[in-house]
Amino acid sequence: MGYINFPDEFDPSLLERPDFDYREISDSVDEILKGVKERGDEALKEYSERFDGTDFSSSSLFVSEEEIEKAERALDRDVKAAIDRASCNIRRFHEAQKPKGESVETESGILCSRIVLPIEKVGLYVPGGTAPLFSTVLMLAIPASVAGCDDIILATPAKNGEVSPAILYAAKVSGVRRILKAGGAQAIAAFAYGTESVGKRDKIFGPGNRFVSLAKMRVQSITAIDMLAGPSEVMVVVDSSSNARFAALDLLSQAEHGKDSQVVLLIKGERGEAEAIYREIENELDRALSELGRREYMLPSLSHSVAFSFESREEIAKAINLYAPEHLILMNRDDEELLKQVRNAGSVFLGPYSPESAGDYASGTNHTLPTSGWARSSGGVSLDSFLKKITVQRLTQEGIRSLGKTIIDMAEAEGLTAHAEAARVRIQDVN
Amino acid sequence: MGYINFPDEFDPSLLERPDFDYREISDSVDEILKGVKERGDEALKEYSERFDGTDFSSSSLFVSEEEIEKAERALDRDVKAAIDRASCNIRRFHEAQKPKGESVETESGILCSRIVLPIEKVGLYVPGGTAPLFSTVLMLAIPASVAGCDDIILATPAKNGEVSPAILYAAKVSGVRRILKAGGAQAIAAFAYGTESVGKRDKIFGPGNRFVSLAKMRVQSITAIDMLAGPSEVMVVVDSSSNARFAALDLLSQAEHGKDSQVVLLIKGERGEAEAIYREIENELDRALSELGRREYMLPSLSHSVAFSFESREEIAKAINLYAPEHLILMNRDDEELLKQVRNAGSVFLGPYSPESAGDYASGTNHTLPTSGWARSSGGVSLDSFLKKITVQRLTQEGIRSLGKTIIDMAEAEGLTAHAEAARVRIQDVN
Repeated sequence: MGYINFPDEFDPSLLERPDFDYREISDSVDEILKGVKERGDEALKEYSERFDGTDFSSSSLFVSEEEIEKAERALDRDVKAAIDRASCNIRRFHEAQKPKGESVETESGILCSRIVLPIEKVGLYVPGGTAPLFSTVLMLAIPASVAGCDDIILATPAKNGEVSPAILYAAKVSGVRRILKAGGAQAIAAFAYGTESVGKRDKIFGPGNRFVSLAKMRVQSITAIDMLAGPSEVMVVVDSSSNARFAALDLLSQAEHGKDSQVVLLIKGERGEAEAIYREIENELDRALSELGRREYMLPSLSHSVAFSFESREEIAKAINLYAPEHLILMNRDDEELLKQVRNAGSVFLGPYSPESAGDYASGTNHTLPTSGWARSSGGVSLDSFLKKITVQRLTQEGIRSLGKTIIDMAEAEGLTAHAEAARVRIQDVN
Repeated sequence: MGYINFPDEFDPSLLERPDFDYREISDSVDEILKGVKERGDEALKEYSERFDGTDFSSSSLFVSEEEIEKAERALDRDVKAAIDRASCNIRRFHEAQKPKGESVETESGILCSRIVLPIEKVGLYVPGGTAPLFSTVLMLAIPASVAGCDDIILATPAKNGEVSPAILYAAKVSGVRRILKAGGAQAIAAFAYGTESVGKRDKIFGPGNRFVSLAKMRVQSITAIDMLAGPSEVMVVVDSSSNARFAALDLLSQAEHGKDSQVVLLIKGERGEAEAIYREIENELDRALSELGRREYMLPSLSHSVAFSFESREEIAKAINLYAPEHLILMNRDDEELLKQVRNAGSVFLGPYSPESAGDYASGTNHTLPTSGWARSSGGVSLDSFLKKITVQRLTQEGIRSLGKTIIDMAEAEGLTAHAEAARVRIQDVN
């Protein structure tokens, strides 16, 4: 047995994700939600002081203009250039997603349309944690700004009162100036209920730890959320044409996210051939693990990871669609053919030169993607996530004269007499 | 004081929706969910027998082909013709909504696309209740079928084992043949967890009573749902040019849905003029109430309804956007101008000849719309609701050579070394 478990046969139960039991943090999250709902800013500050050491006696809840300018000066030049370039690509891809709405005359005199409008008030959450995830700022704030949302607040924990310069610069580049120094369930509560300083949000976006996830789950009966995010996942498809080193590093890119990251390897080939491919990848894992940091995350993650071999493209497609991976890397030679059979996946990376990290950072696609099988029902964050579509209709005299009887017959069959009468009085008026 | 409360001044607190307390039904719903999750079909049948009197000893869980054919023969001819015509319009409007996806070369050698795919397994819920809501069948099943969902199950309670002919015919016309004889929280549970006969659904759609709503709220942490539906709402805008009778009947169309329906009237005009308009509408309400049925719903609903007068278009737009009505009827003379200022609404009806009932049944727009202020963040059910978008990317050798450093700089600044290394080994390979 190597790093990745490689059973003799395909066992679908090995693709089941572990359930996370929120019970142990449930009381704390409920207390925080209730606190912020009832006591607003005061509670928000209290929790931020307690959990992040943010001292609000000398600082406001929001990052100041001076802090943003200072961050820009302090930021490493290469990182700054990288943020600039990535943000151009992300903007370009999301601008191409602008929907136009439609206008259809379904019958003569009946005009039905959809108009597209931005969601007004959005809250973007960016986790703190071991490293500043400034790429998440770009992935949320750029589409919000392209969509034309009027009122964007970004929240991120300020460890000891400081927000990372890369996060502040990424926010600036994305056109977001209101940055709330708060994280965790308390930031989600402020977004959902509103406080004196933080207006209630219409929709809340962004990943986070389990406190954040549970808080989003709790408030989704009153405020829209982007998605419920679980541990990150990758499924990598290889065959004898694939570069084992590329495959190993893509698997590790996922494994380094956290101990609970989900890594699945699908090998196309007869068993003997598949075993040889597996051994090559294992050797590359071995080499990379001895060279790279973050082994404390990678090893536990790999230990619950699994590889399967399949002889046909159809079987591989079936395993992909069953699992519905967040990230799907197709490094096999018939990648385009396989893609045609993919039904459930968040984002797909085709060919040898498309590492997941390209999409995580800079190619232009969004990295906020559906985990835990949510790819069965929805794609990742996109421009659509910040827009809504309103239907509009106008019937002319001709329209109501012609369609009136249909409306009346249906309304009466459903027992709704005022519905029928509302059409009838109009028909009488135009006849 | 008339039927509708008309305070002297605008009071935004009167636009707050009543909270519904689910606590009294919470235990029952949890018990039903648990029962179906653990005991599958057996529990599903048990609850359907208990709540709907459906006898499964001589009938299957699903409606048979014979029952569908029999329904078609039994159905009133006018209703059949109306269903046919409405379904053409609904199909036409939803077909026009087909998105194409995009393909963008964000930089030379970096191709990013979105492909559009239908959600595979959907569950459509159609309430039973006092009248058979066959129009809801059309509004859910037609877009599901236009989207190309492979596996569609429609669930509806079968009072004493019978499903209304109109529902069965509407399902047939919409291309749906699998109709589950079950309703309430037990149907939602079967959709969310799956049973021996009902495969687990990827997304659940449809309105329902409070048991259904609470069940959807509970399962939305594991299965996608269309929306959380509250009591139905209308906001009607009138001025001195509006037909008071039309306005009164549109208000009553909403009020007849149920005692908790929300009805709001906005009158444009100076106070004196507004009062005259209000009195005229009240007279028409009085006349219609004496002629129409369903007064047991209309009177309680009107008693908590409210009218406001405003002198400017901006104030009216502000009230609309604050409330975010499910249905918005603009009967004022400058309807198009006002529409430009509308930000939050589910569906808009323009001009004197566009009663809400046109959109409820037959014009082509969808009647499954956001209530309770959800119009701030989302539109109603549309073709989009049955589709998902997957991002796909391919980098060429040129692409990774050019973008590689950006990826590496960002990954290293976030402390993710395997992410950086996955790009680095590829750059080395192509150089």
